[in-house]
Amino acid sequence: MSVTLTQNAVPTTAPWQDRVRDKQQRILSDVPRQFIHPELKFSNAEAQDVLDLPTFSEGNPARVMDLPAKFLTADELAITALNAEDIPPVIAAGKWTAVQVLDAFTHRAVMAHQLLHCCLSFVYPQARAQAEALDAEFARTKTLVGPLHGVPLSVKDQCRIAGTETTCGYVSQLGVWDDADCLLVDILKKAGAVPFCKTTLSVGCMWGESINNIVGRASNPHNRLFTCGGSSGGEGALIGFRGSPLGVGSDLGGSIRTPSAYNGLHGLRPSSSRIPYYRVLNSMEGQEVIPSVVGPMAQSTKSLQLFVQAVVDAQPWLLDPKSPPIPWRKDVVTEIQSRPLRLAFLHYDKHVLPQPPIRKALRELEALLRAAGHDIVPMFVDALDQRRSDQFGSDVCTADADHDVQRSRDLSGEPKLPLLPARGPGALPPQPMTLTESWAFAMDRMEYQASVLKAWQETAATTKDCAPIDAYITCVNPSVAHIHGEFGRVRYKGYCATANVLDFSACTLPVTTMDVASNPPDRSETEDGFGEAIPAPQCDRDRWIRENYARNLNEYNNMPIVLQIVCKRWEEEKVLAISELVESLLKKEQI
Amino acid sequence: MSVTLTQNAVPTTAPWQDRVRDKQQRILSDVPRQFIHPELKFSNAEAQDVLDLPTFSEGNPARVMDLPAKFLTADELAITALNAEDIPPVIAAGKWTAVQVLDAFTHRAVMAHQLLHCCLSFVYPQARAQAEALDAEFARTKTLVGPLHGVPLSVKDQCRIAGTETTCGYVSQLGVWDDADCLLVDILKKAGAVPFCKTTLSVGCMWGESINNIVGRASNPHNRLFTCGGSSGGEGALIGFRGSPLGVGSDLGGSIRTPSAYNGLHGLRPSSSRIPYYRVLNSMEGQEVIPSVVGPMAQSTKSLQLFVQAVVDAQPWLLDPKSPPIPWRKDVVTEIQSRPLRLAFLHYDKHVLPQPPIRKALRELEALLRAAGHDIVPMFVDALDQRRSDQFGSDVCTADADHDVQRSRDLSGEPKLPLLPARGPGALPPQPMTLTESWAFAMDRMEYQASVLKAWQETAATTKDCAPIDAYITCVNPSVAHIHGEFGRVRYKGYCATANVLDFSACTLPVTTMDVASNPPDRSETEDGFGEAIPAPQCDRDRWIRENYARNLNEYNNMPIVLQIVCKRWEEEKVLAISELVESLLKKEQI
Repeated sequence: MSVTLTQNAVPTTAPWQDRVRDKQQRILSDVPRQFIHPELKFSNAEAQDVLDLPTFSEGNPARVMDLPAKFLTADELAITALNAEDIPPVIAAGKWTAVQVLDAFTHRAVMAHQLLHCCLSFVYPQARAQAEALDAEFARTKTLVGPLHGVPLSVKDQCRIAGTETTCGYVSQLGVWDDADCLLVDILKKAGAVPFCKTTLSVGCMWGESINNIVGRASNPHNRLFTCGGSSGGEGALIGFRGSPLGVGSDLGGSIRTPSAYNGLHGLRPSSSRIPYYRVLNSMEGQEVIPSVVGPMAQSTKSLQLFVQAVVDAQPWLLDPKSPPIPWRKDVVTEIQSRPLRLAFLHYDKHVLPQPPIRKALRELEALLRAAGHDIVPMFVDALDQRRSDQFGSDVCTADADHDVQRSRDLSGEPKLPLLPARGPGALPPQPMTLTESWAFAMDRMEYQASVLKAWQETAATTKDCAPIDAYITCVNPSVAHIHGEFGRVRYKGYCATANVLDFSACTLPVTTMDVASNPPDRSETEDGFGEAIPAPQCDRDRWIRENYARNLNEYNNMPIVLQIVCKRWEEEKVLAISELVESLLKKEQI
Repeated sequence: MSVTLTQNAVPTTAPWQDRVRDKQQRILSDVPRQFIHPELKFSNAEAQDVLDLPTFSEGNPARVMDLPAKFLTADELAITALNAEDIPPVIAAGKWTAVQVLDAFTHRAVMAHQLLHCCLSFVYPQARAQAEALDAEFARTKTLVGPLHGVPLSVKDQCRIAGTETTCGYVSQLGVWDDADCLLVDILKKAGAVPFCKTTLSVGCMWGESINNIVGRASNPHNRLFTCGGSSGGEGALIGFRGSPLGVGSDLGGSIRTPSAYNGLHGLRPSSSRIPYYRVLNSMEGQEVIPSVVGPMAQSTKSLQLFVQAVVDAQPWLLDPKSPPIPWRKDVVTEIQSRPLRLAFLHYDKHVLPQPPIRKALRELEALLRAAGHDIVPMFVDALDQRRSDQFGSDVCTADADHDVQRSRDLSGEPKLPLLPARGPGALPPQPMTLTESWAFAMDRMEYQASVLKAWQETAATTKDCAPIDAYITCVNPSVAHIHGEFGRVRYKGYCATANVLDFSACTLPVTTMDVASNPPDRSETEDGFGEAIPAPQCDRDRWIRENYARNLNEYNNMPIVLQIVCKRWEEEKVLAISELVESLLKKEQI
């Protein structure tokens, strides 16, 4: 497909500010004009700003999530209400065409970008040509080309798409045009998906809020005072707004799961290279001790399953040197569905206590699963030692003392964002690790991994059928979400980074939305909102996360409450089967 | 089992020479006296030295391989003629007991050690207790405890066995006693194998001849002028002498396949961690860019299959963080057996030409397979670029500029062996790689891997059924074997290291033994022994390897000619199924 996009007007040698200005003008330059609504304005400063929009005089749309109804047609609203897995069947049934689906999501995605600054590229001309070709093919054969026929796909701006710039958040990448798709995009296109949009991220994927010098901060559609998380926050905001039914994020320390949690989504952190990373751009490329992984984000577990199965069925290991030759194992799914689950709950890791609504969600979900006949056993909290996970997460991100990120920044002259703390957890070390230190680091990680595997095996002594647990369930982060700029203060990556350090498969599970009235803040450091005893804070971050909740209490209302299911390495089928089971239980018995 | 071995008499603070002397005295101190024949003496200086042994006045045993007949009973000879896969059935049939099998192999292994210096520990008391327990269990249940019931097992002295010293070739490890088995030994014991012996290796596994300051050089049973190879050369010599039916080696740049080739054995280099490495000691631990792997060595393909299936069936991924959860795939074996193979032959990689008998073996095997109806297509020799593999192999071994090896040496004060060249290929760099350089190295490796995968896929265009090749067949090294001390001169690791860099599964296949008369040396640099044109030498090593053959021609007689079958990553079932097929073809139609 030789459809050209609007390319940069300023040379790559121009001052970085000019390159950014040029890029900002180009983001929406190739989408149909009727999808652009000049009255929609980005904000990250106020929760209620959309009230001021002229077109809303008739209603009272307090939240950005209410806006699509004002701007989209009934058909567009119906289409964008579809999950990824619903799209191929409706196309097959002749209800909509791939072009109609693409246009509806593009329209809504443009709105999302105008309101949230969540996108970096729209590739509408290419996507349109591909959707037309899909429609023509379907008209001719009456057969879908693949399991993702006509599903619009957004990708974090690390995934190379031929004819686009892939920035990874760096200004220096503006004007650098890809000549080929990354393997994952190639596979997804062959399965019928229609890549239409590339989403924003933190600079070099290295921060838990999506902020860079190209589009600034991206906001959360549930409340624009809040970050959409990071580093795959553009995906989080876009899919959270239903501007895309399926997206690709990446996760080195929670970068898929954090934005999934903050935007109320299902996101999967697969084990390394189950989903192929080949030719996906990243910072610190070649760092393999704790690998970054790519995985799907969506509005349902079924969407994630559809994605993973489509990719794995394409045998990515034939071309990606790191992909393990593990086919989609239907038998694992069947086995999980045939018996009570064996689960543990990690309510508190003895380092940082989750905020009240998360504690409540964990308690209630545990009760629900127990009542449904599942076998809930004690968690091996001491063997897990999540402070160690948190430390591993920091160490890997600062292994080269920021040299690689700095090099990428220096190429354009863009300024350093003042994110990392000067000292304390996560601060930059003065020097990169030596090779010998990095080997010792790898060995430490392996010993940690092995100690957890051993503890996991030993849970067999506690379950009814004398087999180890299938999964454990915990929070994604101890914060529900947080207001822009607070990440540096509240970041505790223990709950997320554990899956990265162990290379476990983990997915997020939206459980409920926040109701402030039933989730009072803690009365004190040792007493929760209902007067029950809670453990005293263990460190400053523990204290800050608790305080943050009380301080911003009213803003938290209606924010999504999302938990995390963690299975072992390369158990994507299992973790998704469990998620689907819990998701359908939650549909019947709301928490 | 709390059977104690003779422990060190000198403290670990003693001079290294004293510690070595003490160790040498301890190697055979726990084996029954009747297995020790003082008249058997080690040599690496002469091919014919065994003629001088007093007990041989009656015969003319020109080769060490003829010696067992003089010292072993008929039963011992019959038992030690068994391959690993034959042992559980004969025990099940009541023909021999596990104790009888252990004793026969121990006797022969002691001879091997006396003649070849191939062992570092015998753990007879432990092994005997285990064999007795197996016999008792079998007497009680009439059932074998597992697929390796009663199979004596030797392991390279990297594999921890509780109650032993694991030296990895370092004097500093003498007197350091393991308190637990490594996972692999634990799994093999549970499958019924009886670890009875630990074998010598090059210092820190870093050299292609088995030489260290503990037992010096180990020799080749086929001709003691020759090295048994390395780094797993102790296994090579021991199994080559039939002093063990099954052994464990490790391979970072050919360390399983080289000694398998030089000693006429079947050896498997599995892809990373298909066989668990957890708690196996190594140099440069934590180096993961090109991983060391452990794998089996034996006298038949079936022995390798038995080993791999037994290990994989134990689900090593439950406890080894690096093991992929890939079960033994019987369907792959069945599929391979059901149709003609699709193969390519790499006769010459355009960098270093194999010696004449290897060229001949490759040509004849290709003709044999073609005649048997297999589909032989051209090899993607340019995409492979084995000089690059050779360079990767050197770079990974010298990544830390010898710091780790030096540190281990300095702990005891043992001297550095003068092995590495001062300059040229394989010479030590002045400084370790920086972290950034090691990341770039990992990316280079991945691009190389990806380019080969692409070329492999593209072979589909050349095969009769339009599917990519199953495997390619090539030499293990361009030398048949070499005389002690020549490794530094003739080392070209391109043919071996390719599988390491690509993490491919590769096994060796003994094809024939060397007949000097039918393998004349090349007449010139561009004409072989029959007057056919050959490519001119491409580099010094290419020239030396050719010259070496001519120079030592008569010594080469009867040396094993062994080839290598290479499949892709984690295709152990496939490479072994192909090997079995070719092995049985060779039994019918000798080359």
